[in-house]
Amino acid sequence: MAEAAIMPDLLGAALRRIAADVDAGFDAMLPMPQDARARLVEAMRYATIGGGKRLRPLLLTATAELYGVGRELAVRASLAIEAIHVYSLIHDDLPCMDDDAMRHGKPTVHLAFDEATAVLAGDALHAFAFEVLSDPATIGDPFTRAELVFALGTASGMNGMAGGQMMDIVAEGQTFDLQTVTRLQQLKTGALLGAAVEMGAILGRLSPEGRGHLRGYARDIGLAFQIADDLLDHEGDEAVAGKALRKDDAQGKQTFVSLLGPERARAQAEMLVEQAINHLGQHGEEADLLRALARYILERDH
Amino acid sequence: MAEAAIMPDLLGAALRRIAADVDAGFDAMLPMPQDARARLVEAMRYATIGGGKRLRPLLLTATAELYGVGRELAVRASLAIEAIHVYSLIHDDLPCMDDDAMRHGKPTVHLAFDEATAVLAGDALHAFAFEVLSDPATIGDPFTRAELVFALGTASGMNGMAGGQMMDIVAEGQTFDLQTVTRLQQLKTGALLGAAVEMGAILGRLSPEGRGHLRGYARDIGLAFQIADDLLDHEGDEAVAGKALRKDDAQGKQTFVSLLGPERARAQAEMLVEQAINHLGQHGEEADLLRALARYILERDH
Repeated sequence: MAEAAIMPDLLGAALRRIAADVDAGFDAMLPMPQDARARLVEAMRYATIGGGKRLRPLLLTATAELYGVGRELAVRASLAIEAIHVYSLIHDDLPCMDDDAMRHGKPTVHLAFDEATAVLAGDALHAFAFEVLSDPATIGDPFTRAELVFALGTASGMNGMAGGQMMDIVAEGQTFDLQTVTRLQQLKTGALLGAAVEMGAILGRLSPEGRGHLRGYARDIGLAFQIADDLLDHEGDEAVAGKALRKDDAQGKQTFVSLLGPERARAQAEMLVEQAINHLGQHGEEADLLRALARYILERDH
Repeated sequence: MAEAAIMPDLLGAALRRIAADVDAGFDAMLPMPQDARARLVEAMRYATIGGGKRLRPLLLTATAELYGVGRELAVRASLAIEAIHVYSLIHDDLPCMDDDAMRHGKPTVHLAFDEATAVLAGDALHAFAFEVLSDPATIGDPFTRAELVFALGTASGMNGMAGGQMMDIVAEGQTFDLQTVTRLQQLKTGALLGAAVEMGAILGRLSPEGRGHLRGYARDIGLAFQIADDLLDHEGDEAVAGKALRKDDAQGKQTFVSLLGPERARAQAEMLVEQAINHLGQHGEEADLLRALARYILERDH
């Protein structure tokens, strides 16, 4: 991998570890049924196993680790948020949405299978997320279960990810200002990145009042992440990204890059990363992984 | 309404009451946002308000009432299961799935809006269901919240509704036997009808062991419901049904009617309805609504 050379060892090892754990988790939780549902589960496995940066699972497990949460429990909860992320990619890639052919360097689900299977695989992964979180076998304490479901549900619905995606579709025909684009991105990607950190804090039994600095961290890296995405779309390498780029420009869509220009956009993202790291001031070296992750968000090439 | 004449007063009044309560509930819970998400929420409201028989909400609230659960709480929980049902209809109607033009006597969401909005509105209603159930403002007790989410999540995912829909798609090209069609229907519609009764029992704080008779009732009416649906598709009136019929025959799909013939299918459904009512033997007249509902499932004309 190209990023191995520039990535600090701590982060590189953590990314490899969470990727392996998430792959193993989906493999165990999505066994192939011996009936006509096989095609559905095959598509769910195709989409969830062996691809993606696993940023949300890493955010969740790294936050949970700050508070001594067991690895197995944190990984299990991180399957739920990754399932939501993956379902949104499957539906986003559909012909009626972004009509994308490649994702994580392989054909998108509706091309590898068919559109109906892609819609259903997304829906089934969506339900899977809430099944995992509400399963007494995952988490014994019912309060924690209910709190996790609420955090993930609100972040993914009309007041979160799905709402942001609608704004993104409407944006194609309109001229949005910086404030509206910021709001759009906070919903579309920021809400779920924020939920990853929030869920780690919930597992760590941190009170809502005690989560302020983590929410600040999540908000800042969420916005930096999107600016980095816009920069990548503008100047990245399609072969490294594993998906089509230069789509924002082609669609005439307002982005941080189109509104600020690439240089100011990069400076803004750098400022946000520093600000995110400052939010972690109360933590010692146990938060080094979250700090490295904040820097990686801007440095990544895919 | 055509059914008003043949419907016992108890059931007719209950159907009108739950329809009004569910409409009012969605109206209150889905306020129009003052930003570009307006189109999404408009589509969610279009699909949820003012249509459908509200069978699942009625099952949930009627079961909860057996155990003295407050009406407001039961209606709130029933919005969640109805949201799941409605999202599944929106996605089912998509061109890549059943490609239906009419639903509840009006154009389907992807025709009234567009396909991308239909996908997103379905996804947002899916998340809405779990938001409602896990919201401390809905239900104080976290154990009840978590149990409701688990019941609805398992009933709607790969081991429930979504799995059944996949089997249904695969069924078009294959010859299924009666056992496989039964399994398919138990997943596709039976699981969610069962969850409605289960969620009512959960709200009533009935132990899992005490729910046996209710599960038997739900299983039998679930199967009777699907046989009635097949009969309706085979011999119903499109104008009354508010949707296209005769589709199973056209697609050469195996149904209870094609496998058993209409007469044996009807006899089987009648037997199931009687069996469902027998499961309620331990209850007095407080279960009359559930009994009337079981009979209605076979007598309905849409």
